[in-house]
Amino acid sequence: DLKQLESLIDEKTACLIVNNPSNPCGSVFSKSHLQDILAVAARQCVPIVADEIYGDMVFSDTKFEPIATLSRNVPILCCGGLTKRWLVPGWRLGWILIHDRGDIFGNEIRNGLVKLSQRIMGPCTLVQGALKSILRRTPQEFYHNTLSFLKSSADLCYVALSAIPGLRPVRPSGAMYLMVEIEMEHFPEFENDVEFTERLFVEQSVHCLPAMCFEYPNFFRVVIAVPKVTILEACSRIQEFCEQHYHHAEGIQED
Amino acid sequence: DLKQLESLIDEKTACLIVNNPSNPCGSVFSKSHLQDILAVAARQCVPIVADEIYGDMVFSDTKFEPIATLSRNVPILCCGGLTKRWLVPGWRLGWILIHDRGDIFGNEIRNGLVKLSQRIMGPCTLVQGALKSILRRTPQEFYHNTLSFLKSSADLCYVALSAIPGLRPVRPSGAMYLMVEIEMEHFPEFENDVEFTERLFVEQSVHCLPAMCFEYPNFFRVVIAVPKVTILEACSRIQEFCEQHYHHAEGIQED
Repeated sequence: DLKQLESLIDEKTACLIVNNPSNPCGSVFSKSHLQDILAVAARQCVPIVADEIYGDMVFSDTKFEPIATLSRNVPILCCGGLTKRWLVPGWRLGWILIHDRGDIFGNEIRNGLVKLSQRIMGPCTLVQGALKSILRRTPQEFYHNTLSFLKSSADLCYVALSAIPGLRPVRPSGAMYLMVEIEMEHFPEFENDVEFTERLFVEQSVHCLPAMCFEYPNFFRVVIAVPKVTILEACSRIQEFCEQHYHHAEGIQED
Repeated sequence: DLKQLESLIDEKTACLIVNNPSNPCGSVFSKSHLQDILAVAARQCVPIVADEIYGDMVFSDTKFEPIATLSRNVPILCCGGLTKRWLVPGWRLGWILIHDRGDIFGNEIRNGLVKLSQRIMGPCTLVQGALKSILRRTPQEFYHNTLSFLKSSADLCYVALSAIPGLRPVRPSGAMYLMVEIEMEHFPEFENDVEFTERLFVEQSVHCLPAMCFEYPNFFRVVIAVPKVTILEACSRIQEFCEQHYHHAEGIQED
């Protein structure tokens, strides 16, 4: 909602944060939507912090547009890292690319970024040493296999969850997540998605993140970067759980 | 100064921080001094955070006493890590040991520590995986060689700097530093240790840390964990620098 976005910008606004492809939704913004966001940023003179860590993890039927390629005047800090594309979550190395042709950031922001990079908690030197090889020598096949695995996991999970009464999964276009809407009126036992996912964990040992964490109530997030047999098992348990707790809208429990 | 220490404790005091062996001084507290500190902590009911990362880097003529071994009632958090003893500064792995026989910390502090350890900036998994081998399989010889190297570097540096008019080095008992007092009255060109070390860097390319960083004015800190030939070269340049800028107390420059 770009109008609402623009209405929220005031003199205290330091930047717009654009998370694309999105965690938790796995959605990917279109070029024209990104251009609209850039137009708002340009009009309001606010820079953009682009979290594009999933930028290379987009399924082939969608195109990812790095936001920095679409603007010449909006200063952009683009954040990425090893964790996602290279599947090494504990390696703790990320980066920030500065896109700022007009030198709008000036020394203050640039010096701040240098200081940030020199904080004592900086990345492990072993991983820093490996970075060049990771970037240059990872075979194309690795990226291809990762993406096709994620795409087929997403499809599998989407189809399985679509068949469950009371759930409405959202098909992702990238990243490693799938958001599922809970039709709460059919699950009156549960106050919200937190209770729903807690009980799912207790009764079926399936751990999904309640989307309340993302201020996105009545949804939960599924991680699809697991083996297919695990996804199928999890979906079947979610189905059993939903069947046990499903109430018709009239309030009569099926049994 | 234990009296001053005790006088500073009030209801806002969360803990006492005891850094032993000391950075920047390389000094090591005696058992009785530690017992006196513990007595203050016990009397005032404040816990101790013990930074003992240099605990195993003490020269053989001195004995390091882990503070937690000297008390049964003062709760102590003892901080250590790989960086120093294993000489791997960029590996980014440390730990906190809880010594708290009376369970004075309770759940609040323990849960806080667990949360701290789970912060997303936690240590690199590669290093975590190697930790067990590092602790168990490092040969005794490595520790011995490191210590004897540091001890002889410290001696070499102490002797060389002692010969320079206007400087008063302090002999360290451990760690990898040596503090040097500047007799500022003999260097009237320089306002303070920051100016002294800046000019030393500009004129002789020797980088020493002004101890103003540690709120310890008119001193500078030397790192002794460098090859002997480098120490000798550095000391000789420091000597040249001091000779060029030394003034007799009467204010007449030597030439």
